[in-house]
Amino acid sequence: MRGYLVRPIGVIRSEIKRRKDAPRFYTEGAPNATLKVDAKYIAGLERMKVGDEIIVITWLHLAHRGVLRVHPRGDASRPLTGVFSTRSPDRPNPLGLHRAKVLRIKRKRLRIGPIEAIDGTPVIDIKPVVEEANDS
Amino acid sequence: MRGYLVRPIGVIRSEIKRRKDAPRFYTEGAPNATLKVDAKYIAGLERMKVGDEIIVITWLHLAHRGVLRVHPRGDASRPLTGVFSTRSPDRPNPLGLHRAKVLRIKRKRLRIGPIEAIDGTPVIDIKPVVEEANDS
Repeated sequence: MRGYLVRPIGVIRSEIKRRKDAPRFYTEGAPNATLKVDAKYIAGLERMKVGDEIIVITWLHLAHRGVLRVHPRGDASRPLTGVFSTRSPDRPNPLGLHRAKVLRIKRKRLRIGPIEAIDGTPVIDIKPVVEEANDS
Repeated sequence: MRGYLVRPIGVIRSEIKRRKDAPRFYTEGAPNATLKVDAKYIAGLERMKVGDEIIVITWLHLAHRGVLRVHPRGDASRPLTGVFSTRSPDRPNPLGLHRAKVLRIKRKRLRIGPIEAIDGTPVIDIKPVVEEANDS
């Protein structure tokens, strides 16, 4: 089957260094982090401002792409569930969706948080939260 | 710069055939559609059920990847804005986020909606809406 090439537009710099140290969700004690945007994509940040709520889409580069079913949250007592009904990082295309707030903007460095992504995680898109539609 | 290969896990079948006929957002009169999941990813649907709220992530294959700034909603009276602060399909990695409800499941065909994606749009991931965190 045909595919598409995703090119990182930036990277997460975080105090979380290992997958096992990452909270499972941003509401579970995740820290703030820095999103470094690659120089050639800086124009894409124009008019972004401190306080904006954004969705950061990452490529979970440490995930296992061959996994189709998991025990939710790694809890073996929970029945095997298709990855498309879970937020498991292990899935055919390991995309992460992270809702976060913009805390500071310094040219190509966005301070954002809270976010559970691991240090070095590639960022592939940033979108605004669209509140009126309850879509994020 | 290094990249990653995204492999479609399915495709949208919709009555919307052309980009210019697509609503700009699912709340703006979008129809229901069928998400056909590729046979080899069916195990990923296990335990999904009618009524589930999902986020369908698409690859907006008709988008222009070289665009970094747009007039929001194509309205020239609005100032040029970085694509990362808009939901423009034109962006470096043209990912679409679509919140929809599962209306029917027939093996590898999910009837979902409403969704503004065009017929033939590749689907690259499906995630559950995580309501308690107001994250979708």
